[in-house]
Amino acid sequence: MNVHDLPTPLLVVDGAALDHNVTTMAAERPGRRLRPHVKAFKSTDLARHVQATGGHRSFCAATLRELEGLTDASVGDDLLLANETLEGDRLTRLVERADARITVAVDSPETVRTAAAAGASVLVDVDVGLPRCGCPPEEAGAIAELARSLGCDVRGVMGYEGHLVGVPDRTARASGVEEAMALLRVAAESVGGDVVSAGGTGTWDLHPWATEVQAGSYLLMDTHYDRLGLPFRLALSVETTVLSVSPERGTAVLDAGLKSFGMDHGNPQVPGWRVFFCSDEHTTILPPEGPAAGMTAAGTTGLPSVGDRVRMLPAHVDPTVAYHERMVVVDGEEVVDVWAVDLRNW
Amino acid sequence: MNVHDLPTPLLVVDGAALDHNVTTMAAERPGRRLRPHVKAFKSTDLARHVQATGGHRSFCAATLRELEGLTDASVGDDLLLANETLEGDRLTRLVERADARITVAVDSPETVRTAAAAGASVLVDVDVGLPRCGCPPEEAGAIAELARSLGCDVRGVMGYEGHLVGVPDRTARASGVEEAMALLRVAAESVGGDVVSAGGTGTWDLHPWATEVQAGSYLLMDTHYDRLGLPFRLALSVETTVLSVSPERGTAVLDAGLKSFGMDHGNPQVPGWRVFFCSDEHTTILPPEGPAAGMTAAGTTGLPSVGDRVRMLPAHVDPTVAYHERMVVVDGEEVVDVWAVDLRNW
Repeated sequence: MNVHDLPTPLLVVDGAALDHNVTTMAAERPGRRLRPHVKAFKSTDLARHVQATGGHRSFCAATLRELEGLTDASVGDDLLLANETLEGDRLTRLVERADARITVAVDSPETVRTAAAAGASVLVDVDVGLPRCGCPPEEAGAIAELARSLGCDVRGVMGYEGHLVGVPDRTARASGVEEAMALLRVAAESVGGDVVSAGGTGTWDLHPWATEVQAGSYLLMDTHYDRLGLPFRLALSVETTVLSVSPERGTAVLDAGLKSFGMDHGNPQVPGWRVFFCSDEHTTILPPEGPAAGMTAAGTTGLPSVGDRVRMLPAHVDPTVAYHERMVVVDGEEVVDVWAVDLRNW
Repeated sequence: MNVHDLPTPLLVVDGAALDHNVTTMAAERPGRRLRPHVKAFKSTDLARHVQATGGHRSFCAATLRELEGLTDASVGDDLLLANETLEGDRLTRLVERADARITVAVDSPETVRTAAAAGASVLVDVDVGLPRCGCPPEEAGAIAELARSLGCDVRGVMGYEGHLVGVPDRTARASGVEEAMALLRVAAESVGGDVVSAGGTGTWDLHPWATEVQAGSYLLMDTHYDRLGLPFRLALSVETTVLSVSPERGTAVLDAGLKSFGMDHGNPQVPGWRVFFCSDEHTTILPPEGPAAGMTAAGTTGLPSVGDRVRMLPAHVDPTVAYHERMVVVDGEEVVDVWAVDLRNW
């Protein structure tokens, strides 16, 4: 099957780029030293591929739905909800039916009690500088003590330095990670256990101390992470069809827009073109040079034709994938696999 | 069922606000004078409700998937793809099985040929100032002529002034619409037919000439449209759960973020709170007053508790709904209906 024969908009994965990313990461962080984060791709098929080709069997997730999907697809043997939950009934049912070990992050008495009642193991989630979840480092010991008193297996600590993973300068990123991990070290000493879970794609190789890194975006990548000069390749694009061309304006219109791309990191890119603007189901593009946004007669030179296929590059992989129900894996133009994005919704 | 007993994040529709919006619109533009746009809510259940309570039987859509869903659910008797398509096979199958009349927008010889081969009726889509699809007004006659020569029923013209629907000042909006409709009038004269389809929620009452207005956002609304002072009420929110609270920082964390909200119009709002930032599955909020983003000891005053429910208001309804698989309709806290968002994907 040729990818051009499928309807658009369509998530397209370059299989060779994906496998380059898998092997590059696995060489630095093999096996359980990496806990691939499924929130970045929301697909048990892709998780299974990473398990088979990268050799990782620990996964983490941001939602119970993701964890349930991995469990029901029998992917991984050590599954972490790297997030807090108060959904006791669902967590209980998950722990009961899972062959894998189920661990959840906790940062409060309420989340500890939910985990304990469900019989899940826990990591104490520590605030290492990102103003989101996580307890203060000096309170981590008390959280662990409460968890143990309720019968929980306390496996260690988790601290996500999400405020640093996108810092452009590597030296600044590295020193930021050191400061963040100094906070996590304080917590780890009082919590005990043998797991220190931290990091993300932008800091994947800056964690000599963490026992495991949580990275997911490295697999498919996006233009935002691509600015950091990481060794991972852009593997994800959205294939579109040219719906309309205006020689008078010098614009063309692609059939993917705000409902195909997470927009919080800005517009997607179209190699060789400028993106003028996105609307729900369209993106208007301009040639790289010319009269531009004033739009006085850019002329026809170089415009595509109605029906042409054009690939767009997402600025932020996670909220992009979450809009789609499938991704096709290609070798050149040939479709070699179709993977369901089956971990959407909650 | 109480809405607080359902998992979050959860799309919540205030049934009374929705029905206020339906009846307000239907009073001004009854029956076929309005063509509700399903792209704003992607639900055949909601479309059926609008048909029953508003009395409209013409609908429009932005994707073939939306049109197929309306057809298979037997909602509406006059369905318009207010967009171009080159998917001839799907369109042919749709026309064959539809009880409703199927019409598509065309703006080029390629899209005319697709429609003609499928046996669809057409509206000539005219560029009235939004740099997207649509032919120049002076070329509309030739497009119509081509369509008729291929056996198409040419019903009239369509022109969407999307560059104007969000203009804050009503007078400026109105004069912009007049200019746009002057362009559409030129096209209508050469095209013929009895349909002039134009407009959107922001210009819903500025179209004395158009035979039908395409509006969809008016039903659920969002904070962006709410700034215009329209008579439509905010009917849509996303119910969330407080996952984590930091008295030290003066922040709380809600369990909905970039994968629950279209972000192109900026952050969602949380009434009574400031939104600090959104990440994939979280939004960190601050009290309305206090030390704020410096985050030095804002104190505990007024922070919610872990487990509390908080409703968030989307900035842009269309790409928000497209992330969710269902919406619940409430009367106060009581769930009175559950509607599938069944028109997602393509």
